[in-house]
Amino acid sequence: MIYTLTMNPSIDYFVTLSDHLLIDEVNRTIDENFKAGGKGLNVSTVLSLLDVSSIAIALLGGFTGEYIKQSFLNNQYIHLEPIEVEGTNRINLKAHYNHSALCINGKGPLIDENTKHELLKKISKITKNDWFVISGSFPEGSDVDFLIEISQLVHSKEANLVIDMEKITKDTLQKCKPTLIKPNLYEFGLIMNNPNISLLNIKDEMKKLNTLGVKQVLVSLGEDGALLLDNNQFYRLEQEKINAVNKVGSGDAMLATYLAKMISTNDICTSLRWAGAAGIAVASTLENINFENIQQQLNKVTVTKI
Amino acid sequence: MIYTLTMNPSIDYFVTLSDHLLIDEVNRTIDENFKAGGKGLNVSTVLSLLDVSSIAIALLGGFTGEYIKQSFLNNQYIHLEPIEVEGTNRINLKAHYNHSALCINGKGPLIDENTKHELLKKISKITKNDWFVISGSFPEGSDVDFLIEISQLVHSKEANLVIDMEKITKDTLQKCKPTLIKPNLYEFGLIMNNPNISLLNIKDEMKKLNTLGVKQVLVSLGEDGALLLDNNQFYRLEQEKINAVNKVGSGDAMLATYLAKMISTNDICTSLRWAGAAGIAVASTLENINFENIQQQLNKVTVTKI
Repeated sequence: MIYTLTMNPSIDYFVTLSDHLLIDEVNRTIDENFKAGGKGLNVSTVLSLLDVSSIAIALLGGFTGEYIKQSFLNNQYIHLEPIEVEGTNRINLKAHYNHSALCINGKGPLIDENTKHELLKKISKITKNDWFVISGSFPEGSDVDFLIEISQLVHSKEANLVIDMEKITKDTLQKCKPTLIKPNLYEFGLIMNNPNISLLNIKDEMKKLNTLGVKQVLVSLGEDGALLLDNNQFYRLEQEKINAVNKVGSGDAMLATYLAKMISTNDICTSLRWAGAAGIAVASTLENINFENIQQQLNKVTVTKI
Repeated sequence: MIYTLTMNPSIDYFVTLSDHLLIDEVNRTIDENFKAGGKGLNVSTVLSLLDVSSIAIALLGGFTGEYIKQSFLNNQYIHLEPIEVEGTNRINLKAHYNHSALCINGKGPLIDENTKHELLKKISKITKNDWFVISGSFPEGSDVDFLIEISQLVHSKEANLVIDMEKITKDTLQKCKPTLIKPNLYEFGLIMNNPNISLLNIKDEMKKLNTLGVKQVLVSLGEDGALLLDNNQFYRLEQEKINAVNKVGSGDAMLATYLAKMISTNDICTSLRWAGAAGIAVASTLENINFENIQQQLNKVTVTKI
């Protein structure tokens, strides 16, 4: 079974403004759309498009938490395991106007020791060879120490750990020893504490993580595709240029699809190709995507061992 | 009985940013707070602080509408009369950072003929001498013609009509013939199609509206207080300078308090003094206010016939 964990879920509030942005005046939207989200839940959603079941653990509270809960009720592939928290899940505003975007992300509820205890109790139900995916940001009240505690619990169950979180350093990853991570290039620079990583030196940097105990490193590179390191072997994903209109959720789609295909085929090249197609499918539209949208992008991507 | 009508309710999402505003990057909040609102509902809320009952008609839909509904359940002075609409009530973002504020107001649901019909049915229950207050913006699907239809229905019941709406012109007001309007100086300029109204010429402009059939004209002037015209008599509200931290809801508080006191005392000077105090109380804080907060401001305002 695949588990996803979203510690700080959100409702994404996509709005379009009629004009440029006015400070100290009222801006008005011409279009608006709510979408229950959070990176772990996004992973579960993309898994469900591929007919892959997952158990989505999420910390939910308030009227926004209720909306998130309701949004996943009718998805037969997602079993939501909510943990009730005090406070109200955040709303992340994504405002589009002209060719710019304004993102204001909420902070979300404070989580307490009880909530952490309940979360660890739920995680302790996973079994050998399960996959446990932790995505997104830390809520207030939690930090890398808690992530390390979760990681140790996952390893004690002999399950596979995937981490796709912000504010993670290589030191933390050395302690967590995930099977797979999927930063983008910017996040990878933060992990390695090196802002000057480019395609010229990225391979050496990825190898360092390998040495520290991260089995597979998948770095998404936006329109440049992605690079994967597994067992000293690099895989290069390249893609045709597309007109990207959406920056939200493309990396989550890539991760979910890679995972789903690895579990079913155990073939890295095939899995990475599907992952690239899913990333393109999400980036190409502001709408929700389906399986066909992913499949249609397969001819735009190639994967080679390098 | 006082009725308030909010055709386009909202949840105000107050957030504070840690830093200046970044375009095309993710901004993060350090504090956030949800508040069920909309101008008519704000009027009902302030009336309730004065122990005055009202019936609040509001068009509600989606998870945000449910939150608004729940927010008013426990207020013994507000009887909420929801009209269910398709779609989802909007969220209005109010982001504070440094000394600036960014407001992004949603559009809200489209209302259809059925909804309008149901609304008119509810309004037809009002009786002689009731007060009917219409506040806020038009939702998509409605316009001034619908406002005129509502106005005629209110008059046919021999009830009193109060209008505090955006995008109203003097031609519309001539057709609606409200007992009272309460624009601020900027809105008053839009009504009169004259952007150059100042304290020098405002009295002549207010008289014009009187002639067109608006019985009382109350123009709020921010820190300059307010000016009221009734039956060819002007009343000047002046106030001490305050440190205004909140621009939202001050005018609604002024209107609600003026109305409540006029109904109980029929004394314009007393009512206007309380109205000024309520405006100050709201403008002075980002928190919810209570009766004592209003009362404490009374010594900061004076009213004179001029």
